[in-house]
Amino acid sequence: MAHLLSVSSSLSISSGSKSYSKPLTLFSLTSSSSIICPISKSPLKKTLSLRANNASQKHRALHVNSVSVGQETKVEPGSGSHETSNGAPARKKVMVIGGDGYCGWATALHLSNKNYEVAIVDNLVRRYFDHQLGLESLTPISSIHDRIRRWKSVTDKDIQLFVGDICDFEFLSEAFTSFKPDAVVHFGEQRSAPYSMIDRSRAVYTQHNNVIGTLNVLFAIKEFGEDCHLVKLGTMGEYGTPNIDIEEGFITITHNGRTDTLPYPKQASSFYHLSKVHDSHNIAFTCKAWGIRATDLNQGVVYGVRTDETAMHEELCNRFDYDGVFGTALNRFCVQAAVGHPLTVYGKGGQTRGYLDIRDTVQCVEIAIANPAQRGEFRVFNQFTEQFSVNELASLVTKAGEKLGIEVKTISVPNPRVELEEHYYNAKHTKLVELGLKPHLLSDSLIDSLLNFTVQYKDRVDTKQIMPSVSWRKIGVKPKTIAA
Amino acid sequence: MAHLLSVSSSLSISSGSKSYSKPLTLFSLTSSSSIICPISKSPLKKTLSLRANNASQKHRALHVNSVSVGQETKVEPGSGSHETSNGAPARKKVMVIGGDGYCGWATALHLSNKNYEVAIVDNLVRRYFDHQLGLESLTPISSIHDRIRRWKSVTDKDIQLFVGDICDFEFLSEAFTSFKPDAVVHFGEQRSAPYSMIDRSRAVYTQHNNVIGTLNVLFAIKEFGEDCHLVKLGTMGEYGTPNIDIEEGFITITHNGRTDTLPYPKQASSFYHLSKVHDSHNIAFTCKAWGIRATDLNQGVVYGVRTDETAMHEELCNRFDYDGVFGTALNRFCVQAAVGHPLTVYGKGGQTRGYLDIRDTVQCVEIAIANPAQRGEFRVFNQFTEQFSVNELASLVTKAGEKLGIEVKTISVPNPRVELEEHYYNAKHTKLVELGLKPHLLSDSLIDSLLNFTVQYKDRVDTKQIMPSVSWRKIGVKPKTIAA
Repeated sequence: MAHLLSVSSSLSISSGSKSYSKPLTLFSLTSSSSIICPISKSPLKKTLSLRANNASQKHRALHVNSVSVGQETKVEPGSGSHETSNGAPARKKVMVIGGDGYCGWATALHLSNKNYEVAIVDNLVRRYFDHQLGLESLTPISSIHDRIRRWKSVTDKDIQLFVGDICDFEFLSEAFTSFKPDAVVHFGEQRSAPYSMIDRSRAVYTQHNNVIGTLNVLFAIKEFGEDCHLVKLGTMGEYGTPNIDIEEGFITITHNGRTDTLPYPKQASSFYHLSKVHDSHNIAFTCKAWGIRATDLNQGVVYGVRTDETAMHEELCNRFDYDGVFGTALNRFCVQAAVGHPLTVYGKGGQTRGYLDIRDTVQCVEIAIANPAQRGEFRVFNQFTEQFSVNELASLVTKAGEKLGIEVKTISVPNPRVELEEHYYNAKHTKLVELGLKPHLLSDSLIDSLLNFTVQYKDRVDTKQIMPSVSWRKIGVKPKTIAA
Repeated sequence: MAHLLSVSSSLSISSGSKSYSKPLTLFSLTSSSSIICPISKSPLKKTLSLRANNASQKHRALHVNSVSVGQETKVEPGSGSHETSNGAPARKKVMVIGGDGYCGWATALHLSNKNYEVAIVDNLVRRYFDHQLGLESLTPISSIHDRIRRWKSVTDKDIQLFVGDICDFEFLSEAFTSFKPDAVVHFGEQRSAPYSMIDRSRAVYTQHNNVIGTLNVLFAIKEFGEDCHLVKLGTMGEYGTPNIDIEEGFITITHNGRTDTLPYPKQASSFYHLSKVHDSHNIAFTCKAWGIRATDLNQGVVYGVRTDETAMHEELCNRFDYDGVFGTALNRFCVQAAVGHPLTVYGKGGQTRGYLDIRDTVQCVEIAIANPAQRGEFRVFNQFTEQFSVNELASLVTKAGEKLGIEVKTISVPNPRVELEEHYYNAKHTKLVELGLKPHLLSDSLIDSLLNFTVQYKDRVDTKQIMPSVSWRKIGVKPKTIAA
């Protein structure tokens, strides 16, 4: 297959430009060392710049700046289109940061399929974590370059690719001024609570990476496209488990005879969840001070693997994590059932959280983009569709196993986390429904198909990865490494 | 004067040690290249290690590890003493991080005077900021080394010194395992809101430095002295200006028929204030997960310069900032009055905040240390004594000027910040009073003496530094530098 690479012509636009009025013209790179402009046909020399990490960026892979895969496509009307000032339809440009990850990849394809013009920004560090920790997705996943080329061949739609680290502001500036997004969906964070609790250096990495990356995105929006809508992935874990109803971002409090609507109090329970709390506070401030428009999606636990788009071709298949570090409850239980491993309930199993199907993740993000926040508005949506306790999930998987003739056992393992195992939990989640979300509720048939899916890949399961290996209480300062 | 340097014998204790049971023995360094142990008299070679900064630490000065100035002193009973298991009095050891700064220096001397065994940990970056921004304290201040030597000569009391960066965990570990603190007072943060709003790199620096530094302190306590009490300087600015009463850290909310006591909602209004919000969330989590004992002192705006200890000798004099970046309202107004510059009220001047005398800062910290939080307790005290609006302060300074025959004018300048200029403000501050704080309320005589003090130094005032130079709305990504 031809290896098409292109870089945007706006590389030459000054970084001080605040206007996105000029249409983006793309060059196609037909070899690794020369760029042919499809309009002027003038060859431009361009060498991919590979930069060494500096000492403080030891977790980051080498990055290649401003590499985009594919060619410019024709403008087509659709849900990603809107009218320009001269009446011509223009496609909305969405930058998906973290677009190579579990939620990010599904979202990037969904938006591309819905006719948004999509660019993925990713430093691919999630793949690097797997290498370092000896983990692997249940499903075989293709490289990001192969994924994007396959998407092009299947749908004739382009996705641009910028490989680099958003903590590197020079890289992020280049991606912004080149792509000129109308909206940024920011999944680009270290997203595992256990990962953030492995050792001091991973705790520090998680908070540095997530907080500084998001600060850079906010500065990029302010500097290069202040009308751009930030759609930021938060987490329901920011709220913790208070003994009162959880509202969507804000709560009206009457106290000593006076009333105000204030940010909902946050009680996060890992350095990862805390990093999202920090992000939320930073974003809220920039909305007020700079007029940033932002939607904070406090997402619940995502389950499932197939979306309409990732199901189109095996090379588009999404990752599926079942290990003790990146795997989340329902997905991990299905893998355990498939290989005859007892379901591992942490502690009493009364831990209740909000859950959603990955098909609703992509739908929610699309809804947020299609209905942007106002300038200066900091909007919070609780992004989940149903609440379950861990014990309830275990019971659902056990029932689904029976139908397939699989005997499923459940064991309680000592809880590696510090959390309440029995508690009140009632979280509101109406705002996305009001904007049109049609939830895929967790049905028997979905669990059946998820279980079938994991059975299909069960020979790839490494049972050593299943048990929790990270303790909230035992985290220390000594760097942890994984023996072979 | 002899240049005495000493390092602690506990350098050889393994970093995994959790016990503080061994008494600290000090070596005295009589020349820059050899250490004489006062007990064994065996000479040890010790070269001060100067490490180059790495690229991500560009704001940090070179640091010298584990340098302590002075010699071991005799154990004396006093407020810093407590009984050991064998009945002998032992002095409580307090590590003052940021002990070369405005609040830190006054606190370190006060605790030393009260017979606590004190070590200062500081990377001296506050002095570096002055160099970079072309600023200078109203008062001439001595080097930290001269300060500590002068304190020894005046009081015969030792203060140990560890010059280095707490973001460098190797350095912090060494300081912890060497000094073995019973309490850590953590002032060691970038503490200026305007500084954090100069440009992107200072915003990122502020959050990185403050959040990661505090994370490292928490890990050091967990690893090396889990019974150690963290006394952390927060800020009243974490709360913002809600339309309801501000409580001390937590608020009891009844909502939809259920009740819980939750962290008070935070609405910080600069990247600096936000960094303190992030710290508070991180600390609260570690109290719950690891059993850390912590007191978060949400301090108001500090005014004044003299404390009993800094007044003992001119070489002990504290810094006094009046510039638009580090200067705070009342101190800056006094300098403006002294040099005949109009008092600069930002906007309408209705901005109301909590204020306190620096003599109460040192008293509050001492009270917190003498009454430590319980294991696992995250305790929040609002550390201020009175509320004033900016207009009220301007009026007080104007009246004081009249008595001294100085005509004081006030002008309103465009508010460089994004903040409400007229608002409700009623913040509780009873917890420290309940523990014994005897406030120094802002009296006419204190303002008179402060104004007299600034008049005494008025020839050192650089009027170019007075006006606000940093805009909350205009902050950009381009690094700002200061022309000569």
